[in-house]
Amino acid sequence: MTVLQSYLAGQWFGSQAAKPLASAINGEIVAHTHGDTPDFAAAVHYGRTTGVKELLKLDFQQRAARLKAMALYLQEHKKELYALSRHTGATKGDNAFDIDGGFGTLFAYASMGRKELPSGNVLHEGPVMPLGKNNHFAGTHILVPRRGVAVHINAFNFPVWGMLEKFAGNFLAGMPCIVKPATATSYLTEACVRLMQDSGALPDGALQLVIGGTGDLLDQLDEQDMVTFTGSASTARKLRAHPNIINRSIPFNAEADSLNGAILAPDVTPDDEEFELLAKEVVREMTVKAGQKCTAIRRILVPEQHIDAFAERLIQRLEKITLGDPDEEGVRMGALASLDQKEDVAAAVNELLNTSECIFGGNGDPRPVGQGTDKGAFFGPRLLRSTDPHADGGAHDIEAFGPVSTLMGYGDLDEAIALADKGKGSLVTTFATKDPRNAARAIPVLAARHGRLQVLNAESAKESTGHGAPLPMLKHGGPGRAGGGEELGGIRAVHHYLQRTAIQGSPSMLAAVTGEYVRGAEMLETEVHPFRRHFDDLAIGESLLTHRRTVTEADIVNFGCLSGDHFYMHFDEIAAKDSQFGKRIAHGYFLLSAAAGLFVSPAPGPVLANYGLDILRFINPVGAGDTIRARLTCKRKIDQGKAGPDGTPQGVVVWDVQVTNQNDELVASYDILTLVAKKKGDVKG
Amino acid sequence: MTVLQSYLAGQWFGSQAAKPLASAINGEIVAHTHGDTPDFAAAVHYGRTTGVKELLKLDFQQRAARLKAMALYLQEHKKELYALSRHTGATKGDNAFDIDGGFGTLFAYASMGRKELPSGNVLHEGPVMPLGKNNHFAGTHILVPRRGVAVHINAFNFPVWGMLEKFAGNFLAGMPCIVKPATATSYLTEACVRLMQDSGALPDGALQLVIGGTGDLLDQLDEQDMVTFTGSASTARKLRAHPNIINRSIPFNAEADSLNGAILAPDVTPDDEEFELLAKEVVREMTVKAGQKCTAIRRILVPEQHIDAFAERLIQRLEKITLGDPDEEGVRMGALASLDQKEDVAAAVNELLNTSECIFGGNGDPRPVGQGTDKGAFFGPRLLRSTDPHADGGAHDIEAFGPVSTLMGYGDLDEAIALADKGKGSLVTTFATKDPRNAARAIPVLAARHGRLQVLNAESAKESTGHGAPLPMLKHGGPGRAGGGEELGGIRAVHHYLQRTAIQGSPSMLAAVTGEYVRGAEMLETEVHPFRRHFDDLAIGESLLTHRRTVTEADIVNFGCLSGDHFYMHFDEIAAKDSQFGKRIAHGYFLLSAAAGLFVSPAPGPVLANYGLDILRFINPVGAGDTIRARLTCKRKIDQGKAGPDGTPQGVVVWDVQVTNQNDELVASYDILTLVAKKKGDVKG
Repeated sequence: MTVLQSYLAGQWFGSQAAKPLASAINGEIVAHTHGDTPDFAAAVHYGRTTGVKELLKLDFQQRAARLKAMALYLQEHKKELYALSRHTGATKGDNAFDIDGGFGTLFAYASMGRKELPSGNVLHEGPVMPLGKNNHFAGTHILVPRRGVAVHINAFNFPVWGMLEKFAGNFLAGMPCIVKPATATSYLTEACVRLMQDSGALPDGALQLVIGGTGDLLDQLDEQDMVTFTGSASTARKLRAHPNIINRSIPFNAEADSLNGAILAPDVTPDDEEFELLAKEVVREMTVKAGQKCTAIRRILVPEQHIDAFAERLIQRLEKITLGDPDEEGVRMGALASLDQKEDVAAAVNELLNTSECIFGGNGDPRPVGQGTDKGAFFGPRLLRSTDPHADGGAHDIEAFGPVSTLMGYGDLDEAIALADKGKGSLVTTFATKDPRNAARAIPVLAARHGRLQVLNAESAKESTGHGAPLPMLKHGGPGRAGGGEELGGIRAVHHYLQRTAIQGSPSMLAAVTGEYVRGAEMLETEVHPFRRHFDDLAIGESLLTHRRTVTEADIVNFGCLSGDHFYMHFDEIAAKDSQFGKRIAHGYFLLSAAAGLFVSPAPGPVLANYGLDILRFINPVGAGDTIRARLTCKRKIDQGKAGPDGTPQGVVVWDVQVTNQNDELVASYDILTLVAKKKGDVKG
Repeated sequence: MTVLQSYLAGQWFGSQAAKPLASAINGEIVAHTHGDTPDFAAAVHYGRTTGVKELLKLDFQQRAARLKAMALYLQEHKKELYALSRHTGATKGDNAFDIDGGFGTLFAYASMGRKELPSGNVLHEGPVMPLGKNNHFAGTHILVPRRGVAVHINAFNFPVWGMLEKFAGNFLAGMPCIVKPATATSYLTEACVRLMQDSGALPDGALQLVIGGTGDLLDQLDEQDMVTFTGSASTARKLRAHPNIINRSIPFNAEADSLNGAILAPDVTPDDEEFELLAKEVVREMTVKAGQKCTAIRRILVPEQHIDAFAERLIQRLEKITLGDPDEEGVRMGALASLDQKEDVAAAVNELLNTSECIFGGNGDPRPVGQGTDKGAFFGPRLLRSTDPHADGGAHDIEAFGPVSTLMGYGDLDEAIALADKGKGSLVTTFATKDPRNAARAIPVLAARHGRLQVLNAESAKESTGHGAPLPMLKHGGPGRAGGGEELGGIRAVHHYLQRTAIQGSPSMLAAVTGEYVRGAEMLETEVHPFRRHFDDLAIGESLLTHRRTVTEADIVNFGCLSGDHFYMHFDEIAAKDSQFGKRIAHGYFLLSAAAGLFVSPAPGPVLANYGLDILRFINPVGAGDTIRARLTCKRKIDQGKAGPDGTPQGVVVWDVQVTNQNDELVASYDILTLVAKKKGDVKG
């Protein structure tokens, strides 16, 4: 008999069998929860102390590298999880969402972390703004890891992805977490946590796991902790009102299943490819994970004149769905996660029938394929058709969390939007249209009530990842009934675990706090040209003030002839006189090029390449006779632990460039991005 | 007798006198609230319908212009508000914070809106990301106005600024608001709203005002509405748990008074300028607005060995504070806002005395200067000294919302941070230090518990705006006890009233929805060069594919000689062979310059200037013999309603530039920023 264990305060915990967890496919007992009561106060304390300490021994870049290592290890061992996953009712196709999707999310965050996060543990959000005329006092914003634990309370439908999509954010941020999976499928989460432990990439205290109830866990939290929740809208309400969460302003991020929509735009007719594409999308959403996805389409809005045709297309596709044991050939849809779920879904369908009729699946399901499936939690697709689309208390309010969806007709686009809005806030709606004008009209209005919107047409369908799939780089979570939270969305997800703080002080103090050069801060002027310093040796604030160059008419002429840019402002004395500058001026790109000529150090050295430039602004015009010089200052260093194509370990260095004229007025301002070699040969893991 | 009125559903409402509001200075009755009960359901409905509709007839840029017009009108009429403000207990200096500070916030948001927000009502947050290999399916993020009302519940201490700092954000966002000022000083808010109405810049339904109780207002709200609150931590808790707010996931943003700190770093001695600067800052914070600021310093942490010296400096300064009627000569501090407040503050001081002793002000206050002030709500400064800095239930937990602060000693920097943390989340702390290393060590740790941190030293003090002043461009609001909310912080404040939504679809659909060109979207190739089109005529997606140019060795040589950039990668055959590209390549800035040469249209035309460039990345190297061309596409248009120095009306146009080689591989990618003249002569207000 397998007793699942919690992983708390650095120990696997629990030995007494408590609740049996049955296979959704055949009713066999897969595992038991443990009955021993954990010490949640100790777990929270361990996270806040050991967890925070160990995570902050690494920096953003190093945690991104660890995330990748963990994802690689998990991918090597994914078959162990596949075997268990079947018992949750998942088909092989469903595993692509939960298991592979979970690993994919870790890979994506590892990569985004490398590209977008700094070295160190202070994320300088910026921008730096002078707050006085002489730049003695300036302000900026930083983001720092919250020094508490993130408690993640997850749903039963995604035992792996549900944990990992949240973990990626808190881990990159440098905040430890305590994961509480839904009990019904917690055996799969537990197996995944064991693999994560085995990977060796998880610092002590970074991830704790709770099997079974949360007891007094939420009472142990304080102002630096956080709670995230995925599950039903009603549980979200209960948790949000928890006295400790209210009293201490503990951030609470909820992602609740919602009454997501699919809208067939008025321009689409049954002859259009989009008509069929939307029918396909709807049936996929009804059947993937047996409709147990918080993003699944619950309401299908179709122009009244096309509703019969659309119903027919859906039914044709639904008829081809084979229900049964995912290990059996040809099975397209597995079971609900438990017999309890089956009961809930059946009850919700009954309620929905007050304002709709069942047009598919109403006469009971065929026998599921496979042995022992009579004891499984199988429930076939049900397509309902609304008898009163504007009614309250029907499909706009009740969710059947299974393969159930309600079709309803609308008159014009405004009515379609009004019906969609009756869901009171959804995670996602798909809008199928051929006409960009309809998209431009409907999407900004629908957006106020949605977390994500997919515009589906023949072109996008070639590569669409589908209505139901939250992607790591796109926000997941909607307003209102959908819980009002935000998850994923690229590095935005990391920000949820960081505290934003405004910092005011002298530029030198801001530079010390942010670890970046800030204009006005003290600079280091050394004998050595900063381009001749290796990444390791280069200090933030190291600066070069170049020699000068007088810009001549010959420069303007030569530059125009070489570039081919004969814009009147540089070449036409008559028109230039009438222009805003009242005279011919040098090309902006000449200034940029001449500045490089002033600060570049020609011989081979540690600076390997200038791969880009940001925020270039031309501030004052430069004409013939003006004399320019440049100041180049080391602004930011990022150690991504990478090597160049030839194996040279290197880091990113961003340089602040200011080009000034003979009156010390700024004429151009920008950042240049370079790759700089390290002195020593070791590439950081 | 003056009866204050609510402004609801487009009407001034209320005539029956109810609660009398007394002057804090002399007890005279300034005004009465109204006793008539408003119809809050109608008010909310009016905001959601008329308010939303009228606000969205304008776009972000036009609302920024309205905000400026309103601020100008208010500034002309500020004396009317000054006269009333005296009764709130405010000195002339205090008015600078509440009244002038409020107008300044409107001006600041008008300016930030112009600079940072787009035309239209869709804020394209981006970035656009291809979600498939062939760019048929891409994703991005937009922000759109929430289609509900924002209810602002404000505190008594800033009747003008408190309203305007919130209003600026919701108004720019395009979301209407209902303002509920604290009753005690609501006569000043009412007067300000009347001026805003008179300004003519306020669309119908954009701002409603509630005088007196909120009745069932919060019960009328739904998922698209929002609530913001400024006031005590205990009221914040109560509102946050309101069933309707919980049940509908209504965003609730709280900014609560907190136990803010001042820390004298271990490196500062009584001989340092920073010692005196911090003493001055503390006394200012104790006495401005009679200490009734949510940002006021309540806890003063000083190295144990300097605590006597520091107490002495504070007392010397406190002795010079004259209490009384702000209209009297020499008065430095006014009254608390009401007699109720005076009672509350006295009670809190009594509680604080369990863990501290009073070292200034304990023997009662001198008689306040001015006639009738014996009936005023005067309360002199009290400096306490903690007898047990680590005790719970003292200065780390109890707030006396008046001119009261507690001094405590610490051993080392870690202890100072631990004591600061005992405030459980604060709006702001000032850290006085000479040593950037101490700032670099303490600030990132303190940041996890703070919304804002000021590093004070001799340099920053030259221009510091002070510990207590929230600035429009910097975030206001802290975690935990401070309410967990965020206000201000530049355009971040506007985002709170917008819904972020991920959009997926084909590039052409994303372009239609965002109103910006997206790579991969359909382009418009016309006969006319896009640089020859006026701002008005230019369409998003208008594009020019230039002729080609073969890059030659002569180009490389000439460009190096002209710019002075003889980097080995361009000039040293031997070293370049060993480099990552294995050969000499052209300068990146040559490509940029040659691309301009390919797409610039030389004769005078609507394109007035190229003032900058963003996100330049060099993707592939270009060598002698490669042939390049450029594609220039109109990406974004922003109509700021501005004119150039010569009066030519103009707009900002951002162009997407792609430079490709003979194999159609991207070699350089960037945006250029231009000013383009309008055809017609009218500059938008």
